[in-house]
Amino acid sequence: MKAEIIAVGTELLLGQIVNTNAQFLAERCAGIGIDVYFQTVVGDNVERIRSALRIAAGRADVILCTGGLGPTLDDLTRDALGEHVGAELVIDEDGLRKIEAFFAERGIVMVESNRRQALTLAGADVLPNDTGMAVGTALQHDGKLYVLLPGPPRELKPMFERYAIPWLRANMNETLPLYSKSLKFAGIGESGLEHALIDLIEKQTDPTIAPYAKEGEVMIRLTSRASTEAEALAKMADVEAEIRRRVGDHLYAEEDVSLDAVVVRLLRERGATLAAAESCTGGLFADMVTSHSGSSEAFAGGVVCYSNAVKQSLLGVPASLLAGDGAPGAVSAETAAAMADGARARLATTFAVAFTGVAGPGPADGKPAGLVYLAVAQEGRPTEVRELKLSGSREIVKLRACRAGFYELWKRLK
Amino acid sequence: MKAEIIAVGTELLLGQIVNTNAQFLAERCAGIGIDVYFQTVVGDNVERIRSALRIAAGRADVILCTGGLGPTLDDLTRDALGEHVGAELVIDEDGLRKIEAFFAERGIVMVESNRRQALTLAGADVLPNDTGMAVGTALQHDGKLYVLLPGPPRELKPMFERYAIPWLRANMNETLPLYSKSLKFAGIGESGLEHALIDLIEKQTDPTIAPYAKEGEVMIRLTSRASTEAEALAKMADVEAEIRRRVGDHLYAEEDVSLDAVVVRLLRERGATLAAAESCTGGLFADMVTSHSGSSEAFAGGVVCYSNAVKQSLLGVPASLLAGDGAPGAVSAETAAAMADGARARLATTFAVAFTGVAGPGPADGKPAGLVYLAVAQEGRPTEVRELKLSGSREIVKLRACRAGFYELWKRLK
Repeated sequence: MKAEIIAVGTELLLGQIVNTNAQFLAERCAGIGIDVYFQTVVGDNVERIRSALRIAAGRADVILCTGGLGPTLDDLTRDALGEHVGAELVIDEDGLRKIEAFFAERGIVMVESNRRQALTLAGADVLPNDTGMAVGTALQHDGKLYVLLPGPPRELKPMFERYAIPWLRANMNETLPLYSKSLKFAGIGESGLEHALIDLIEKQTDPTIAPYAKEGEVMIRLTSRASTEAEALAKMADVEAEIRRRVGDHLYAEEDVSLDAVVVRLLRERGATLAAAESCTGGLFADMVTSHSGSSEAFAGGVVCYSNAVKQSLLGVPASLLAGDGAPGAVSAETAAAMADGARARLATTFAVAFTGVAGPGPADGKPAGLVYLAVAQEGRPTEVRELKLSGSREIVKLRACRAGFYELWKRLK
Repeated sequence: MKAEIIAVGTELLLGQIVNTNAQFLAERCAGIGIDVYFQTVVGDNVERIRSALRIAAGRADVILCTGGLGPTLDDLTRDALGEHVGAELVIDEDGLRKIEAFFAERGIVMVESNRRQALTLAGADVLPNDTGMAVGTALQHDGKLYVLLPGPPRELKPMFERYAIPWLRANMNETLPLYSKSLKFAGIGESGLEHALIDLIEKQTDPTIAPYAKEGEVMIRLTSRASTEAEALAKMADVEAEIRRRVGDHLYAEEDVSLDAVVVRLLRERGATLAAAESCTGGLFADMVTSHSGSSEAFAGGVVCYSNAVKQSLLGVPASLLAGDGAPGAVSAETAAAMADGARARLATTFAVAFTGVAGPGPADGKPAGLVYLAVAQEGRPTEVRELKLSGSREIVKLRACRAGFYELWKRLK
């Protein structure tokens, strides 16, 4: 099955927002056996949307449209598809009742244009919107599958996962639908993972094994055709066991979730607490921890020590480590360990993580950009230090150092 | 002039990366008077790229292609455009010399495929690549303008700004090219800015005035047609003066630069130093400061105090403020001020900024999500506290609180 994604919206064309929906849909389509061959962006103009639909129908089997389902007269995707397939616009009564209830509850007068969000096409299946008002539409016409989804990602994503994927599976001209499962890894790169699994990746056909790398996170997706999800998982079990035997030490989740989210969850589950001492990472580690709701249960806080004076005053790093003849200096294993110990003692936590290094772009104090010392202090255990040699921009070095910190914590918590 | 952007790359189609190039190009095109009507994404397949070029030539005057200029056999954009316009591939000798020099300097053997990056089309103008190897191509054919740009944003952006924009200006069928100037504002929202300037926005035609809001930053773009940039700027001078008269207090830059970057620059220029005390922002403020190379000259560091114990031990916030009958509590103006004063005293800086509040998503300690107290302490001045009522997700509340902190600093530094 070949697909085309058509994103509708003048704000996308003008570059005011980035088309993240296309990325989300393309990735999910790959997971159910639909190959995206083209993506198109078109403005809020009914003739140009129709033209994009005509071109897409000429080269794809599945046409996914996003955006243009709102209440205003600029929201024209339904109208354009109706003209393209020759179907009337009709009100979805369930959708309309939900919109009316929304306004009634809030005591706001509902204007006529809000009814537009309940519009679908005659003969189409309606995709409910659990997180917003505009209903989605799914329709077969002339051997092609058309799906209309709302533009806001927080509406599009659940609608696609819960309603559009099952509809596509049921209507695809395939013997059996595809099911997939994600395995996420830490502390190993994409090439290391490929190297360890290369024979499986090459010889396995059902399930297939595909490695992905995205923003420094590594994932493997197992995909199998089966009549039910249970059957697909049963087919994956042997391969998954073999993967676990080889690289299970690095496997941190069986779903597409970040390592920092898993670490925060494990800390909370174990009743453990955490502190951070950050030089080169400059607060990013604490920011990643505190991006998770509920992190305050486990995270006491941290010190961002961008100067030697702060390393001494707030973390108690001895001056003799930082300066003077033969001193290891701020960027050293000894300083990293003293920062971690100082943070753990002063913030009275189970764990403390410390980072000192050179974020770049240039070298500093005779040390190369990307050199980072990462220390982990833990109650009842000697403090350990790792030397990292990271590459990439300043931003990437900071992020990779933080990821390594979460990996060390995860190894101790799993 | 109507434009279409064609992004080439299977990794975009599969959703492995987000198409940020399209956003950048669309925004810059708007600035020089080119309207983007369609964007297309196509995989690394010469037939499908040709088909996308044919469709684009049927509906646009300017066709901008990104990606597919690398050294491998998967890099096919040049080949597809050559077939589309009937032009031979030829080596750009300047480009080739640069590639040869790169390999010679590093003592690496250059393989034949690297020569591909110096390929352009017969009769085309070459766009130099100042930050990478693949040359760009600009070509007029059958009344249409074609521009080929490399995929990596750090190569595409300078090539487009320095070479493609002047080439487009010189070859556009317009009486005069468009020039634009960006003004960036802080401490005022898009609607506030529009309200203050509505009569200008509506009546002004040359230059035009367009407000933009992106991720919480507000910008105004003045655009004018003129034969030279100096002439365009002269035409903008009166309008700019009127804008400054009305909202000049909020104008922080005459280019598209972030407020945190400007604050770090001003601190360095003034020889001032900064510390941060962060509760609800959780390290994000320090992370934003330290994202700028050279920030270590001005930023001493900070404390992320996610627990009351840390507020007391590392910042010296009195226990009586935090707990007990009638105590203001952790989320209060008094605690924010004590945090800022504690950070400034202990880190010995010119300025300290403190944040305490409820990041959300839910309320905490009987205080609503989005309530944030922001304190600024400065040498020789009484500490001031602002109460912020922010909306949005946890992430957005953290970001908006930090932006407000940078705004308060900027007002004192400007």
